[in-house]
Amino acid sequence: MSEELEVRLKQHLAQITPPNEAVRALAAQREDDLAKPRKSLGRLEELAIQLAAIQNTFHPRHERKLIVVCAGDHGVVEEGVSPYPSDVTIQQIANFQQGGGAITSLARATGSDIILLDVGIKGDLAPHPTRVDAKIAHGTQNIAKGPAMTRREALKSVLTGLELVLERPEIDLVTAGEMGIGNTTPSSAIISLLTGLSPLEATGPGSGLSPDRITHKANIVKKALEVNKPDPSDPIDVLAKVGGFEIGAMAGVYLGGAIRRAGVVIDGFIGAAAALLAEGLSPGLTKYLIAGHRSKEKAHLETLSRLGLTPLLDLGLYLGEGSGAVLAFGILKCACAHFNGMRTLADAQVSDTILT
Amino acid sequence: MSEELEVRLKQHLAQITPPNEAVRALAAQREDDLAKPRKSLGRLEELAIQLAAIQNTFHPRHERKLIVVCAGDHGVVEEGVSPYPSDVTIQQIANFQQGGGAITSLARATGSDIILLDVGIKGDLAPHPTRVDAKIAHGTQNIAKGPAMTRREALKSVLTGLELVLERPEIDLVTAGEMGIGNTTPSSAIISLLTGLSPLEATGPGSGLSPDRITHKANIVKKALEVNKPDPSDPIDVLAKVGGFEIGAMAGVYLGGAIRRAGVVIDGFIGAAAALLAEGLSPGLTKYLIAGHRSKEKAHLETLSRLGLTPLLDLGLYLGEGSGAVLAFGILKCACAHFNGMRTLADAQVSDTILT
Repeated sequence: MSEELEVRLKQHLAQITPPNEAVRALAAQREDDLAKPRKSLGRLEELAIQLAAIQNTFHPRHERKLIVVCAGDHGVVEEGVSPYPSDVTIQQIANFQQGGGAITSLARATGSDIILLDVGIKGDLAPHPTRVDAKIAHGTQNIAKGPAMTRREALKSVLTGLELVLERPEIDLVTAGEMGIGNTTPSSAIISLLTGLSPLEATGPGSGLSPDRITHKANIVKKALEVNKPDPSDPIDVLAKVGGFEIGAMAGVYLGGAIRRAGVVIDGFIGAAAALLAEGLSPGLTKYLIAGHRSKEKAHLETLSRLGLTPLLDLGLYLGEGSGAVLAFGILKCACAHFNGMRTLADAQVSDTILT
Repeated sequence: MSEELEVRLKQHLAQITPPNEAVRALAAQREDDLAKPRKSLGRLEELAIQLAAIQNTFHPRHERKLIVVCAGDHGVVEEGVSPYPSDVTIQQIANFQQGGGAITSLARATGSDIILLDVGIKGDLAPHPTRVDAKIAHGTQNIAKGPAMTRREALKSVLTGLELVLERPEIDLVTAGEMGIGNTTPSSAIISLLTGLSPLEATGPGSGLSPDRITHKANIVKKALEVNKPDPSDPIDVLAKVGGFEIGAMAGVYLGGAIRRAGVVIDGFIGAAAALLAEGLSPGLTKYLIAGHRSKEKAHLETLSRLGLTPLLDLGLYLGEGSGAVLAFGILKCACAHFNGMRTLADAQVSDTILT
């Protein structure tokens, strides 16, 4: 029975309140008073103001950063939608445990805590201190043939990510990364369903599919939606029918971040799909979200735009793992630094007379 | 007589050699071997490879970072080309000395050393440990009426920036910031002359000029070029006729960075003008350059493009001071971190069989 889990999720969601608009207004005033031409720090100013409102403080913080790398496998890989075999998921998680991945390198560089969260890897790994074992199943079912998971499993995946964040010490910034061969396919299905983009428009090369294989992948996305008929008004149904365990956990991490009043940085295409689900579960959640970067996946920008988000970086990344979000942590650090560190025009005795 | 200074500059320029192409090729090979889909870290990969070739090492570094904020005033301000009075230059330098500026906040956040370099501030400040006094004159002459400075002064400004970098300990990354009310006007003149953009195309709002004042500013740029007739094939002549002391010093910092085989990050519009001069003095210098960001100044992107550079960030900044370059330091840190920290596919035992 999933009744108990539905109630538990509802109780968590009830804790999410909007960022503080009074703090936002006063933070915006402070920005205008700082010793620089108004708005001349562009998006750095917007970020500082957003973080102030989210964190409910006039001293926005970035120091306590958490990356949750959510991992799961996908039955749909048997349809030939990825250039890599499912084995790579567990191989990369083993590599991350040794610190040899892109995301682990970037976590060290930015001073971020990192947790590897197994919600659905196909194989089994020996326990490791950097990994939380919360496996729901050994990969999803093939969405081209039926639902990815049960409703109960979908609820569990969201709750796992959410409660992991709540169990952690206080955080200032959080992101969810992912590792899951095949996971751009369920992401395209979610995005197609919830944005109205066609399966072909919502489907891209993922980790490097050739152009002719992209058409095949789009047909699988189309089939998954036709076979499963997910209800777009019910994010848990969407996740159960065409999602993935790590995608649910990512949505949960975002929701947990909002409960903790942290800035929630989203990464790439899969992160955007998870954000659509999270916004569906808690309308207005996007006020907590910061789009770390624009990935090379073609429907990413349009999906962010539907969420009202503009990516901070555009560096041609298509790796996933959380890499683009963690790059953005450095920008957020500078957003906090200028806001907290600069003097006002008055304190600095700098002329604010503008000649006209 | 400027003969001795011409010789000294030539001697310095003779020390600049191209980045190591053999190291570049091997670094590119290592990128392809790392445990990720090839090219999936986009520009991070390009940056790591570029830094490896520049620094002549397979372990590119970012730790030792230097910001030289070059300061000078501009006689052309009397023509009404800036919304701010010249006084703001010295006021902001005094503020920076106290750590209350944007650039000083960002320097702290990124762990960068910062030097304030007075090459031409109009007023005088008491000595301060953070400031190097190398004042050449109390501001330039009005370029709408005659040359900004003598040829000897132009040489001195370049040599000052260059030799400051050479006197410093080893560095991995360097940037030149600037503070100088009115300095987008000489920058537009330099850019118009050296790119072929018209004065109107090369002129923007600077620190916030209204649209009708931009036309006036463009007319001043046009007049400065007509009155002075700088020789586009002689960067020192261009600097002397329509430049600024801090612009010359910035070009010198770039050249000094190349001699030290550091990655040279350029900031905004004024940095691009200085880069055109530096490339003129040492053709091929652009291989050492990394464009930190795209500023809101309209001709910036086109100027970078002429230099063969694509900006890393686009965050709506138009402050200057070096702010956009220092934001890019965080990206360069992550470029080094993934290159040095990731394991190869073979070491990580991750499958590199791509299914086709």
